[in-house]
Amino acid sequence: MASTDVPEIVVRRLPLYLRALTRLIEANHLITSSQELGEMLGMSSAQIRKDLSYFGEFGKQGMGYEVPYLRDQLRRILQVDRHWDMVLVGAGDLGHAIANYAGFKRWGYRVVAVFDNDPAKIGKPMGELTIRNVAELEETIQAGHVRIGILAVPAPHAQAVAERMVRGGIRAILNYAPINLNLPPEVRVHSIDPVVGLQSMSYYLDLVGE
Amino acid sequence: MASTDVPEIVVRRLPLYLRALTRLIEANHLITSSQELGEMLGMSSAQIRKDLSYFGEFGKQGMGYEVPYLRDQLRRILQVDRHWDMVLVGAGDLGHAIANYAGFKRWGYRVVAVFDNDPAKIGKPMGELTIRNVAELEETIQAGHVRIGILAVPAPHAQAVAERMVRGGIRAILNYAPINLNLPPEVRVHSIDPVVGLQSMSYYLDLVGE
Repeated sequence: MASTDVPEIVVRRLPLYLRALTRLIEANHLITSSQELGEMLGMSSAQIRKDLSYFGEFGKQGMGYEVPYLRDQLRRILQVDRHWDMVLVGAGDLGHAIANYAGFKRWGYRVVAVFDNDPAKIGKPMGELTIRNVAELEETIQAGHVRIGILAVPAPHAQAVAERMVRGGIRAILNYAPINLNLPPEVRVHSIDPVVGLQSMSYYLDLVGE
Repeated sequence: MASTDVPEIVVRRLPLYLRALTRLIEANHLITSSQELGEMLGMSSAQIRKDLSYFGEFGKQGMGYEVPYLRDQLRRILQVDRHWDMVLVGAGDLGHAIANYAGFKRWGYRVVAVFDNDPAKIGKPMGELTIRNVAELEETIQAGHVRIGILAVPAPHAQAVAERMVRGGIRAILNYAPINLNLPPEVRVHSIDPVVGLQSMSYYLDLVGE
């Protein structure tokens, strides 16, 4: 169970630590330090020690962290030491790319149903799934006890589809639509916004000589 | 020109401030405060004041910020008060979704050329563009003085394509491949990783009753 005492910004950094630890294990590098993790992630070692201290004592003074142990603890804390089912709404180009994304399966996330409202798409195969009528969204979520939804519909439809997801029982939404969703506070939303990434990079681009 | 004195984590937050200020302007809300911005973004007002202080004095004590002025200053600082051309490599489902993404155009980013290595795709139309042979990548980047590249190729090809982008003159890469790129330090990389978003949400999911 999540503690409400941990700042959300700290929780958002834990997956980055988990990713770095997984890379260390793949390189058979089994002891690490907050300094080393900080260098891998471009963060200060103090920040990493402070973030981890919310969840317990994972390292020994002067001894560093045992990588597999810390990795397993982070997997437990993040509740990613299990499989999660997801529903996907939107069977366009983006929906196809999402359904085929190997990274989800590798980390335990599985798209179990895909929906669209286009009669030309409903009933067609998409990978191993068959595209279903979005009219069946709520009942499918309820029947499967699904808690995670992926929104890959055009912006004008996003709010209405998100509300239907929540009515079915979805409590976490990965939102690819370029719009802010207004949902009850108990529903988590993570928006994928490539423009934010582009804007933080264009700060660094050197215009000299153009 | 970017100052090297500003921590990268601060730069990464500026687009979020810009987004919030743009929403305020759309709501005809023309004076704001670090408290209000903090509430919109789930951050502390002290953090926002500290971040902005790297770039100058934008508000008056007790008077708050003039939203259009601060928005324009952030656009200037981030170098997004202009148009940026981008090349896209990878004309699969994800590439199509990226090329059609309205958010890029709205914020001044334009895909000017798309490439693939699949003979079945080369020469085919993709929106208003024609898919080109990736063999022409470097010369197209050089001829157009393009600085931003989008990588939407399978993971095993990503490093090689990124290196070719950099040889052509690309200095910022939006990376959709689930892999770490090893590139010269002067090249910025922003990776779109939906799994990180999912993992930070599953922390909050309540498993009670299942």
